[in-house]
Amino acid sequence: MANYIFGVDVGGTSVKMGLFDTEGNVLDKWEIPTRTENHGEKILPDIAASIQEKMAQKSIAKEDVAGVGIGAPGPVEKSGIVHKAVNLGWEEMNMKEELTRLLGGMRVEGGNDANVAALGEMWKGGGQGHKNLVAVTLGTGVGGGIIINGEIMTGSTGAGGEIGHIHVEDNETEACGCGNFGCLEEYASATGITRLANRALKASDKDSVLRKGEVSAKAVFDAVKEGDELAIEVAKQFGEYLGKGLGVIAGIINPEIFVIGGGVSKAGEVLFDYIRPSFERTAFHGSQNVIFALATLGNDAGIYGAARLLL
Amino acid sequence: MANYIFGVDVGGTSVKMGLFDTEGNVLDKWEIPTRTENHGEKILPDIAASIQEKMAQKSIAKEDVAGVGIGAPGPVEKSGIVHKAVNLGWEEMNMKEELTRLLGGMRVEGGNDANVAALGEMWKGGGQGHKNLVAVTLGTGVGGGIIINGEIMTGSTGAGGEIGHIHVEDNETEACGCGNFGCLEEYASATGITRLANRALKASDKDSVLRKGEVSAKAVFDAVKEGDELAIEVAKQFGEYLGKGLGVIAGIINPEIFVIGGGVSKAGEVLFDYIRPSFERTAFHGSQNVIFALATLGNDAGIYGAARLLL
Repeated sequence: MANYIFGVDVGGTSVKMGLFDTEGNVLDKWEIPTRTENHGEKILPDIAASIQEKMAQKSIAKEDVAGVGIGAPGPVEKSGIVHKAVNLGWEEMNMKEELTRLLGGMRVEGGNDANVAALGEMWKGGGQGHKNLVAVTLGTGVGGGIIINGEIMTGSTGAGGEIGHIHVEDNETEACGCGNFGCLEEYASATGITRLANRALKASDKDSVLRKGEVSAKAVFDAVKEGDELAIEVAKQFGEYLGKGLGVIAGIINPEIFVIGGGVSKAGEVLFDYIRPSFERTAFHGSQNVIFALATLGNDAGIYGAARLLL
Repeated sequence: MANYIFGVDVGGTSVKMGLFDTEGNVLDKWEIPTRTENHGEKILPDIAASIQEKMAQKSIAKEDVAGVGIGAPGPVEKSGIVHKAVNLGWEEMNMKEELTRLLGGMRVEGGNDANVAALGEMWKGGGQGHKNLVAVTLGTGVGGGIIINGEIMTGSTGAGGEIGHIHVEDNETEACGCGNFGCLEEYASATGITRLANRALKASDKDSVLRKGEVSAKAVFDAVKEGDELAIEVAKQFGEYLGKGLGVIAGIINPEIFVIGGGVSKAGEVLFDYIRPSFERTAFHGSQNVIFALATLGNDAGIYGAARLLL
């Protein structure tokens, strides 16, 4: 019987891998480096070799493995086609077919990393018990993963759930990484919060603990907890934008729960105090009854979700 | 063999009904009044009686009918539960179960009217050939219906696709019908366009054909076609808001096509000229490759989509 699943989360510097049973218990966890040279041509062969090595080590036969799930950065279609994964060097290719081939015909399922992480949080993380979920990752950027009736919403070209780039500000003068102006990511990511803090420090003479060390999203929320007025002002701006953004998402998707993860979410539930006012002011009343929860799987959400793709 | 399907679209003043074959050809079309008195308790019995009368008239046996699809205004869950349909007087009830009972066990499927209309446009209207579609109805309000992989996205409480109430303006002083301020509906509905036009007429002394007759969305776009400067200014405002709203939706949903319907869409493809600039400026690049199309089924989209629910 096929009792094992491999979950693979391909990042720009390392590939996280997990061996799971079909109940979602992680039996082993390890990492290999991501070799991005030559358009990342070594990445999938390295993954296949590592899986085969683990199987040999644990005496797992091919027929004992239900399959391999893999999440990768960039738009991934349902078919497994990746259009361009800039961080990996990949041009267009079908990672499902390719990895299946490398593993001698083993079943492979694939998805975008943010979407797959959302599935992980639904299965074993902050979103357990819910089938309609929006995962929001507040890290260097803002990522999103949308789950509808227990399934990833891929979008027509694999770009579904790109919530970091929804437009929330008309008067922004600095461009977002995507080239547009006024994307949610410019205010709600760790980088965005730092930017808001630096702007606030420049615009005011107010005393603040933020003037004493390195300005970062973590420093802002640490200062908020100490009652620092300027930091609270920055947190309010962050919350105003993110609450409006989530309000729009709620009106369109009508999810049961938002699961907030990424580095910024380490600040904890205090985030919700800043998000809720603008959310409640702007979201459609029929969609306001949403739970706000913190992600709990951290960097493991990707391998959990990848494994879940097989079930 | 079950060769027939009934499609029912319940509106606030009349119920539109259609008899279809399973290929989607409409064989008959009629309307009955919507009796909203006593919490709309007569509406479903009237529909059941009209279906049975039509079956008798055409000598259609119960086993020849694949089922009845019904669309109703208000949030409708997948189970058929309607939470509150204000225009019909309905409180919480299961319209699928109730109509099945009234029809002696016949199969019934139900959905929200805007979502069902979107399915109709996908099946036989402006969205044919596409499985990932967002229908936008620019009428008295702004309605939306989202189709993912050929299926209606209901949302967790039936409020999915409420795109008329996504927040697009921070500085609005007049409340939307929903109670919030700055909803898309306040600028992109027929009522919203009229409001923008009246504001523009008040704010400027510029000569305009709009000063000569009744101000309406139709008058605005008629004037646009004559090159009326003030009307063009109003159309630009309309397009700025709607383009930004659709840009946000594209970033989240990543659809193949927007199908624009409702009274305002009678202005034709000129609408797209006003929507595209802000859409292209603000939408995530990975989701910009969307088709803009006009709805083609008009008021019949609801009965087509309702019938499609059975397939």
